[in-house]
Amino acid sequence: MSKAEIGLIGLGVMGANLALNIAEKGYPVAVFNRTASRTGTFFENAGDLRENVVPCATLEEFVAQIKPPRPIILMVQAGKAVDEQIEGLRDFLSAGDIIIDAGNANFRDTIRRFDELENSGLTFIGMGVSGGEEGARHGPSIMVGGEKQAYERVESVLKSIAAKFEGEPCCAWLGHGGAGHFVKTIHNGIEYADMQMIAEIYGILRDGFGMGAKDIGGIFAKWNEGRLNSYLVEITAAVLEADDPMSGDPIVDRILDRAGQKGTGRWSAIEAQMMGVPATAIESAVAARSISADRELRLLASKTYGSAPAPTNTKPDASVIQDLELALFAGKIAAYAQGFAVMDQASDEFQWNLPMPTIARIWRAGCIIRSQFLGTLARSFEADPDAENLLLINDFVSMMEEAHPALRRVVAQAALAGLPVPALSAALGYFDAFRQARSTANLIQAQRDYFGAHGFERIDEGGEHHGPWGSGAASA
Amino acid sequence: MSKAEIGLIGLGVMGANLALNIAEKGYPVAVFNRTASRTGTFFENAGDLRENVVPCATLEEFVAQIKPPRPIILMVQAGKAVDEQIEGLRDFLSAGDIIIDAGNANFRDTIRRFDELENSGLTFIGMGVSGGEEGARHGPSIMVGGEKQAYERVESVLKSIAAKFEGEPCCAWLGHGGAGHFVKTIHNGIEYADMQMIAEIYGILRDGFGMGAKDIGGIFAKWNEGRLNSYLVEITAAVLEADDPMSGDPIVDRILDRAGQKGTGRWSAIEAQMMGVPATAIESAVAARSISADRELRLLASKTYGSAPAPTNTKPDASVIQDLELALFAGKIAAYAQGFAVMDQASDEFQWNLPMPTIARIWRAGCIIRSQFLGTLARSFEADPDAENLLLINDFVSMMEEAHPALRRVVAQAALAGLPVPALSAALGYFDAFRQARSTANLIQAQRDYFGAHGFERIDEGGEHHGPWGSGAASA
Repeated sequence: MSKAEIGLIGLGVMGANLALNIAEKGYPVAVFNRTASRTGTFFENAGDLRENVVPCATLEEFVAQIKPPRPIILMVQAGKAVDEQIEGLRDFLSAGDIIIDAGNANFRDTIRRFDELENSGLTFIGMGVSGGEEGARHGPSIMVGGEKQAYERVESVLKSIAAKFEGEPCCAWLGHGGAGHFVKTIHNGIEYADMQMIAEIYGILRDGFGMGAKDIGGIFAKWNEGRLNSYLVEITAAVLEADDPMSGDPIVDRILDRAGQKGTGRWSAIEAQMMGVPATAIESAVAARSISADRELRLLASKTYGSAPAPTNTKPDASVIQDLELALFAGKIAAYAQGFAVMDQASDEFQWNLPMPTIARIWRAGCIIRSQFLGTLARSFEADPDAENLLLINDFVSMMEEAHPALRRVVAQAALAGLPVPALSAALGYFDAFRQARSTANLIQAQRDYFGAHGFERIDEGGEHHGPWGSGAASA
Repeated sequence: MSKAEIGLIGLGVMGANLALNIAEKGYPVAVFNRTASRTGTFFENAGDLRENVVPCATLEEFVAQIKPPRPIILMVQAGKAVDEQIEGLRDFLSAGDIIIDAGNANFRDTIRRFDELENSGLTFIGMGVSGGEEGARHGPSIMVGGEKQAYERVESVLKSIAAKFEGEPCCAWLGHGGAGHFVKTIHNGIEYADMQMIAEIYGILRDGFGMGAKDIGGIFAKWNEGRLNSYLVEITAAVLEADDPMSGDPIVDRILDRAGQKGTGRWSAIEAQMMGVPATAIESAVAARSISADRELRLLASKTYGSAPAPTNTKPDASVIQDLELALFAGKIAAYAQGFAVMDQASDEFQWNLPMPTIARIWRAGCIIRSQFLGTLARSFEADPDAENLLLINDFVSMMEEAHPALRRVVAQAALAGLPVPALSAALGYFDAFRQARSTANLIQAQRDYFGAHGFERIDEGGEHHGPWGSGAASA
C-alpha cells in the first residue's frame, strides 16, 4: 500500500535535511540511500518525524511506497551520479512519474536530461535549492525548471517546505528545461561576488587599518542593521566574532587563506561570456578564489615584491566606516545588475521568459544571498518590469547616486595602499563604462580597421566605413 | 602534370594575400575559390607573381595541380564552412595529403577535426595566423598545431612566408591537435587586453584632460620609442593622427564608439574560466567591448547618472605622462602574465607541452601584439624556462617594481574622476592579490563552512576542520 506523498533519494546532509523538512510539514516521504545503513541511521534519528518517514531498503520498495504519479527528489552528487540514479530508477517507474534533480546541476545537463526523458512518459524537473544545510532543514529558496504541469503536482509540498518571506513561500516555477538550475547558478555567481566584496572590505580593515577580527565583526554587525542587512553580512559578523576553542584566538585568524569552489561561480562566468554579457564582478570573485588557492605561488610572489605596506594601525573614523559601507553597497548593486543582465539574456536565448520580479521575491528568504536589498529589488522590478538594467530602475538610481562616490574613494585608496579590491573595482569599472555616453571604443574600432580592415560606423553617416590609413594598414 | 608546391582554398583578403606571399617566395601555389570569378580576378591582379600561381576552376583540377603529398591551406570562414570544405575535398585527396586550416578556428573544433581525420590517411593541421592583411601578404606570425611530421612537409614554405625577427622566422610547430589554434586564441585574448588598456589611457587623456586626438597621438608616438614600443602603440599614434577627409577632423572623433568582436577574446576568457586560471584583464577587455556595443543603453545611463565630470583642460605635466606610460606598461605585464598562465595550464591539461620561449619568439614579429616587450619576454623565458609565472621572472620583477606604483596612481585617479579603467584595475587587482602573503580567503572559507559545512584548513594543523559556529550554522 503506497503511503508516501513523495520520495527522496540521497541522504547526505542536504538530502536528509530536506526529507525531515518534508516530513515535518506533514507529508509522508519515502527515503532511499544507496548505502542502506545510512537510511537506517537517518530513520533512527528522525525522532517524532518518524511517523512521516518511510525508510526503504530497495528501489523497488521505495517506488512502491510512493503514490502515483510519483514525485521523486534526487539529492545525490551532481554529475554522473544523477544519470546513474535516473537509469537505475527508470525500470520501476510508470508514466506520469516525476524525477526531480535537486542537486547543484549544471543547467546544460538538466536540459539534456529533460530532453532524454522526453517521450519516455516520465517528466524531469531541475530544481535549484539554496540555503545550505539550515535552509534545507527549515526552509530553502526553491527555483524550479521543467514542465509546469509536473511542477503543479509537487507545488504544495515544495511551497510548504520553502522559506517564507512575510508568509509568501520562496518557491516558484521559473520556466521550462534548465531554467531553475540556471537561475540557481547565477544566484551562486552573485553569491561569489557578494562574498568577495565583503572579503575585500574585511581586507581593508585588517590590512589597511590593522584592526582585529572582533572589531571588524562589530562593524559588520552594525552594518547588518542598515542597508546592508543580509544573511551574508550577518554571518560575516558571526564568524569574525567567533573564538577558536583550541587557541583562544578569533577563529578566522587560524583559518588557512585558500578558498575552495565547487564550480557554480565559474559556470556563471562561462555562461555570461558565451552570451557576451559583462559579469566582471563575478569573474573577479572567481579569480580571487583561484589566486588564493595557489598559496605557494602567493608566498613566493610576496617574498619577491613584498605585500602591501604595513597597516596604519589608526582606527578608521566614522567617515571611513561609512565610505566602506556605501562602497560595499554600490559594489553589490553593480554585481546584481550584472547577474540580472545575464539572466535577462539567457531568458531570451533559451526562451525561458524568466520572471525577474519573482526571482527577486524567492531570493528574499531561505537562500544564501537573502537580504533586505532583495526586497527593494522585488518591489522595484514589479513597478518597472521592463527595465533594461537594474542600474536604471528608479530606487536603484538614487541608491547608486548616493553610494558610488564612496566606492570610488575606497577603490582609489585601496589601489594606492596596495590592497587588492578586484571585485569592487570591477563593479566600479562596470558602472563607469555603463554610464559613459561616449566610450573609447572609437579608438578600438580604428585600430581594428587599421590592422584588419574590419570597418567602422561613423557618428555622422550610416553604413560601413574604412579609415584613410595609408600604407602599412590593411586595405578595405 | 602537378606543378604546385602547395594549394590554397579561399581567396578572401587574407587568403589572397597569403597566396601572393607564397608565390612571391618562389613556391608555385594552386588556388581555388568557391565563386570561380574571384579566382579569375585574383589571377588577373597577381602581376608578376602569376608565374607562380595556378588558378583552378574545379576542386578536381586544383588537387591534381598539387604535388603529393599535397598540403592544402584552407582560408575560409571559421565554422561550418571549414567542415564543408573538408568534406568536399576528401574524395579527391590521397593518403598523406595534409589539410591545413589557417582560419580563426576554435581550437576545440580543430581537435575534433584532427580526430575525425585520424585513420583516414589524411592529416590535419590547425594553423593560427596573426598579422592581419598586411601580415598575410608580407609576413605573418604562424602558430602550428597538429602532427609534427605533417608540419615538416610544409615547414620550408611556412617559414619562408612568415615574418622574420632578426632573420629568424616567426613560425613554429607548437604541439599536437589544437595547440596552434589555442595559442592563437590566447594571442588574441592578450591583444584584446592590450587594446583595451591603450583605450583606457586614451580615455584619461581625452576625457580627463580634454586633449585632442592629435596631441594624444603624439604622446603614443613618443611612447613607441621607449619601453612600450609595439605595433599596437605605433598604430594607435597613426590612427589618432589621421584626418577624416570628409570633415577635416581627426578621424577617431568621427568613428562611432561601438566595438565589434569576432569571438576569440571571448574564447580566451571561457577557456581560462574552464581551467580556473585568472584572466581578469582579458575578461574586462571583452566586457568593455560588449558594454560599448550597447550604445543606446549607455546613452540612457549617462542621462540618468551623468558621465564623468568635465575634463580639467589642463595639460598633463611630464610626471603624469610618465605615470600613464608606466601604468600601461605595468598593466601589460600583468595581462601577459595571465595569458601565459592560461597557456601553461592548457599545456598540462591537453598535454601539448607548449614551448613558452618559442611562443614569445614567434610573436616578436608579424603578429598584432608584436613588441619590444616580447623580445625581453623571449630572452627571459629562455633564461628561466620553469618560471611559474611571468611576474616572477627576474627582468619582469624589476620592470614591475618600477611600474606598479604608477599603475596604482593612475587607477586611483581614474576611479576618483569617474573614468572607466576596467582592464587596468583588473591588472592591478591581479598583481596585488598575487603578491598577497595572507589573502582574505580565510573569511570566505569561514563563511562557506558556516552556511554549507564545507570545512576549512587551519594554519596550525593539518586536516579538515569546522568552525565553532553554534546554532544557525550548518552542522559538520
